[in-house]
Amino acid sequence: MDSRRARLYDTIHSRRDVRGQFTGEPIPQDALTRILEAAHAAPSVGLSQPWDFVLVEDEALRRGFWEHVQAEREQFARSLDAERARLFERIKIDGVLESSLSVVVTHDDARGAPGVLGRFSIADAGLYSTCLAIENLWLAATAEGLGVGWVSFYRESYVRALLQIPASIRPIAWLCVGPVTHLEASPDLERAGWRSRRPLVDAMHVDRWGGRRSAAGA
Amino acid sequence: MDSRRARLYDTIHSRRDVRGQFTGEPIPQDALTRILEAAHAAPSVGLSQPWDFVLVEDEALRRGFWEHVQAEREQFARSLDAERARLFERIKIDGVLESSLSVVVTHDDARGAPGVLGRFSIADAGLYSTCLAIENLWLAATAEGLGVGWVSFYRESYVRALLQIPASIRPIAWLCVGPVTHLEASPDLERAGWRSRRPLVDAMHVDRWGGRRSAAGA
Repeated sequence: MDSRRARLYDTIHSRRDVRGQFTGEPIPQDALTRILEAAHAAPSVGLSQPWDFVLVEDEALRRGFWEHVQAEREQFARSLDAERARLFERIKIDGVLESSLSVVVTHDDARGAPGVLGRFSIADAGLYSTCLAIENLWLAATAEGLGVGWVSFYRESYVRALLQIPASIRPIAWLCVGPVTHLEASPDLERAGWRSRRPLVDAMHVDRWGGRRSAAGA
Repeated sequence: MDSRRARLYDTIHSRRDVRGQFTGEPIPQDALTRILEAAHAAPSVGLSQPWDFVLVEDEALRRGFWEHVQAEREQFARSLDAERARLFERIKIDGVLESSLSVVVTHDDARGAPGVLGRFSIADAGLYSTCLAIENLWLAATAEGLGVGWVSFYRESYVRALLQIPASIRPIAWLCVGPVTHLEASPDLERAGWRSRRPLVDAMHVDRWGGRRSAAGA
């Protein structure tokens, strides 16, 4: 396999959703710029580039968010049965305070509208574009030797108020970013016994839902 | 810059949304497997891996979809003012018939539910995961020297019926995949004069919406 492919696959397969390994060391400015350029180079429906990036450096803002996350965590814990709740108790769900920087990725559904090419039939197509930018950011950070953790224990309305985000703009992801001691070899939730990964073959279908390739096929 | 980073950025920045450059040559089976493995290695909320991949090889199915796309295209054209409609007329919106394979990525919101860790506060978090898998697929295909084009001129209900996808599963992307003569240096829509890319600096905010780093800052 040539080097370009091998390096990409190495990045894709070593990428982790980081909670516990942040060191708190600063992110080099040039690395941060490259990571955001990578996110900004994502595909987008009708070239709408509907994303924005709010870099949250302020400690008070990050602590405010962290406290909100803890409250949401408790609510989720109360929704679980006793066994799952016990398992969940041991799982770290965020690295907001330990990581070097938070990057909040937002979505503006009005950008380029009306007449966004390719968004006529599918209302959510803009939202999908913003998610593609998030994955670019994540892989770029991984290649830079940084960790990324997506925290999703929050209410959008809370984040919108905290960061003075206009009502028409939707916060999509709160990402913790920064140097890490290492990336784990397998997902936290698998190591914790919360859930195991599904074999790829179960996710593959041919020509119709549930379709399998015949033995004679390629 | 080390080779791992440089190669990833090369892939991210050379990736295009392809319509016109497909050759129709077959995709090597081992490359297709690596691409799907890359998609399947995407992060997902609560390790739910809510995606599936329907490989559409059958010509009649692809032709049926293509005809549906043309009808949706006409509807969109009628929604535009005269000037935009004239511009749109010259823009190719899909490579369904010319590409080697269609890959339909679907989303199952029930996978791992109830109690998907991290999806308690944000209903769409599962959907976001499926989009991350799509970007991994796209970058992997790019590194394999293949093109990918996301067609979004369709009704979900049409694709669901065509591929016998259960009512609870949502088709998210119809991706045309295959060898290409080349990747263009800039997006089709920019070259066609439809829309230009936004400068990254306009998408960056510090600590709050519209916040800029002070001149004294790093």
